[in-house]
Amino acid sequence: MTQKVTPRSVDYSRWYTDVVQMAELADYAPVKGCMVIRPYGYALWENVREALDRRIKETGHENAYFPLFIPMQFIEKEADHVEGFAPELAVVTHGGGKLLEEPLAIRPTSETVIGQMYSKWIGSYRDLPVLINQWANVVRWEKRPRLFLRTTEFLWQEGHTAHETREEAEEETKKMLEMYADFAENEAAIPVFKGLKSDSEKFAGAMASYSIEAMMGNGWALQAGTSHFLGQNFAKAFDITFLDRNNELQHCWTTSWGMSTRMVGGIVMVHGDDQGLILPPRLAPIQVVVVPIGKSEEEKRSVKGMTDKISEALRGLRIKVDSREERSPGWKFNDWEMKGVPLRVEVGPKDVEKDTVVLARRNQPGKAGKQTVPLSVLRQTVEITLEEIQKALLERARNQVKDRTQEVRSFQELKEAVFQGFALAFWCQDPEEEVQLKEETKATSRCIPLDQEEAEGKCVFCGKDASRKALFARAY
Amino acid sequence: MTQKVTPRSVDYSRWYTDVVQMAELADYAPVKGCMVIRPYGYALWENVREALDRRIKETGHENAYFPLFIPMQFIEKEADHVEGFAPELAVVTHGGGKLLEEPLAIRPTSETVIGQMYSKWIGSYRDLPVLINQWANVVRWEKRPRLFLRTTEFLWQEGHTAHETREEAEEETKKMLEMYADFAENEAAIPVFKGLKSDSEKFAGAMASYSIEAMMGNGWALQAGTSHFLGQNFAKAFDITFLDRNNELQHCWTTSWGMSTRMVGGIVMVHGDDQGLILPPRLAPIQVVVVPIGKSEEEKRSVKGMTDKISEALRGLRIKVDSREERSPGWKFNDWEMKGVPLRVEVGPKDVEKDTVVLARRNQPGKAGKQTVPLSVLRQTVEITLEEIQKALLERARNQVKDRTQEVRSFQELKEAVFQGFALAFWCQDPEEEVQLKEETKATSRCIPLDQEEAEGKCVFCGKDASRKALFARAY
Repeated sequence: MTQKVTPRSVDYSRWYTDVVQMAELADYAPVKGCMVIRPYGYALWENVREALDRRIKETGHENAYFPLFIPMQFIEKEADHVEGFAPELAVVTHGGGKLLEEPLAIRPTSETVIGQMYSKWIGSYRDLPVLINQWANVVRWEKRPRLFLRTTEFLWQEGHTAHETREEAEEETKKMLEMYADFAENEAAIPVFKGLKSDSEKFAGAMASYSIEAMMGNGWALQAGTSHFLGQNFAKAFDITFLDRNNELQHCWTTSWGMSTRMVGGIVMVHGDDQGLILPPRLAPIQVVVVPIGKSEEEKRSVKGMTDKISEALRGLRIKVDSREERSPGWKFNDWEMKGVPLRVEVGPKDVEKDTVVLARRNQPGKAGKQTVPLSVLRQTVEITLEEIQKALLERARNQVKDRTQEVRSFQELKEAVFQGFALAFWCQDPEEEVQLKEETKATSRCIPLDQEEAEGKCVFCGKDASRKALFARAY
Repeated sequence: MTQKVTPRSVDYSRWYTDVVQMAELADYAPVKGCMVIRPYGYALWENVREALDRRIKETGHENAYFPLFIPMQFIEKEADHVEGFAPELAVVTHGGGKLLEEPLAIRPTSETVIGQMYSKWIGSYRDLPVLINQWANVVRWEKRPRLFLRTTEFLWQEGHTAHETREEAEEETKKMLEMYADFAENEAAIPVFKGLKSDSEKFAGAMASYSIEAMMGNGWALQAGTSHFLGQNFAKAFDITFLDRNNELQHCWTTSWGMSTRMVGGIVMVHGDDQGLILPPRLAPIQVVVVPIGKSEEEKRSVKGMTDKISEALRGLRIKVDSREERSPGWKFNDWEMKGVPLRVEVGPKDVEKDTVVLARRNQPGKAGKQTVPLSVLRQTVEITLEEIQKALLERARNQVKDRTQEVRSFQELKEAVFQGFALAFWCQDPEEEVQLKEETKATSRCIPLDQEEAEGKCVFCGKDASRKALFARAY
């Protein structure tokens, strides 16, 4: 921990990798493209997972588990799906010491195998809707891996629902998009754009894909969650039919939606600084770290008495007392700053005398973020301060999005804007038009934001009439 | 649900499969040997998982996540390990559309890849102990699959720890065995034998394996959790070394321990009856089901008022009100009996008049298990009753173990005993001796129970002096 991270201004990519590794969120696995999620990173993921799982259940979904292995012929049943996923598949050819008759794909996503089961379980409109989610690992072969953001294996949840009507399925698709946005803003303190993906960016096999797009510290976009309206495409490919209220056989309307460990990378990049991570209190594995300060044995003893009282006062919060003997307080401050713990409590001999402690906020370095608090009001002060930090992080992230999102009217302006951050521009949605932008800037259309009024404008590329603005950015 | 399960007395195996499928715990997956865990089964697994995870964390362990893919050369580094696992491996030979330079095994267990990471992370005695657990899917190619009990892919937790000394590692191994026994008895209401595995049954690569063994409804044994003392075998194979307190380089002492979705099969087979599942209240996804009874619209309305009050009174428990219009009360009773819900609340028009409800216990069919309870004391009565059911299930299971476990002194007695249930017999632990027993009865030694005093006896096979009894049984 004597190492320092590469400053963001020097090399943003290296800063990211440094923070992820030095904060012990993750490490490279022996197999290229894969990662190990270390205990601190996994504790963060567990909190993400819990907050999402609660929302998934509150909206009426149940968890289940479907197999890792998918027969190759399943993947091939939906034409767009196989075209999209075939190049990324990992394939098992041998099992139990024998060559398999049919090779098995490791699931890159589970529409196919779940579709197969739904066709077996669903018979009548009375069986609908089916609202199922699974937490699982998936594999998509990755040529340019980055810890959390793009790894060959990653963890995620994937929801898969089947409905009687098109309207119901469309409503579900949007409801789950809202759920992701709610999670991102209220738990991860990350403001997002919710929108419709362009045809070239939509999920392989979907009628329409929606995403939430977040702005990282360098102005790039991260697609942090997606929700797909699959129409009857998979229902037709897998024969998911039901007898409707008139006793006629119909195909179901299905949806799928997912959020993954990539979200952890988003949290690092939205909030972190050159000292390391800054974690939003609602998701932080450790919300408060207590660092005792004392030199003589007597000092240490009296400080120990105080830290015991602090632990008692803060019971139920996620706290840690760092009583490592072999490390200095300064070293510990740096260590927990690297790990992004939102709030630090310092206790020295003088604090013991006065029955006070010092609170230091991770998101406000230096004296401005420090505050002396009597032990008697520590609990309520800590609770309020954690809420304030949560709000401050969201606020700062919102301001960054505001500062770095420009409305542009010409191709030239668009090209300049995407080097600063996000650009909003009218677009006629002709997929050919994005190509030049991508070639010159690497930016692409991220989504057509839902929160905009229909208006009259001219396409930023061709000048034709366009009624909707698209969001353009370089993206992870 | 008009179907009936095959009675246990007719065909115990079919009874098991019927119950698992009709109670909608699981279904067969399209790939042979794999299963789909349906929402009801997964909710049960989530409760198992939560109760175990709490114990794992309380004993100082942290969760992490290691990759699914393991380079084949890793598996080959520990000689016994590769011999044990090679025949069961699933192997990925293609990724991203290309033939891989080195094939990748899907993890059958993770000692190897975790060992590799530990060798990187551990440098000094100050880094020890490392106490990590992971929740993951693993794959072992299965020729004779059975839902939950033996599936090619299954879910489990695997703990992997590294220690400074042999003593510490041995202590950890036993501590986690105790944890499994505590979970089995106090959550799943399943009494177990804790013991040491014989050499022929121990984990591939371990110095010593311990297991908990439970008795199923047919008298067979189920190994429900294992804890392995790995000595320095994996530390030597993967170079997991540390500088000790004298600044000398040493190999770590490691352990591993696991419990899997197989436990769900154990719960089915220990408690279930010819009506279906019987779930222990602490793990049941639904602890109380409320069935409203009423014919006329007026009756239905007044009963509805009552069920609302019941829901309110039982808030915080896992309850479900079954208000399906198209099903009769009798049909619902059968349905929830199949699903093993511990307690049913019936409410009809007469109950509304008297402000009472009828409680019916799943584990006591007929009038004996029924009780009329005033609404005013419903909450406390339900809580007490659930605790009583939990205890009664454990008690019944204990009695079954007692009734069907025999101490035997001759090979003839041993052979007869294993057709009834478990047999305890002095054994000199010569592995050759089990062979004939296995050939004639399919029974094997399950473990050398830890809870026995050293004594003087004669080996049941050869008559030689033996100081320990072994447990013999047919096993899943």
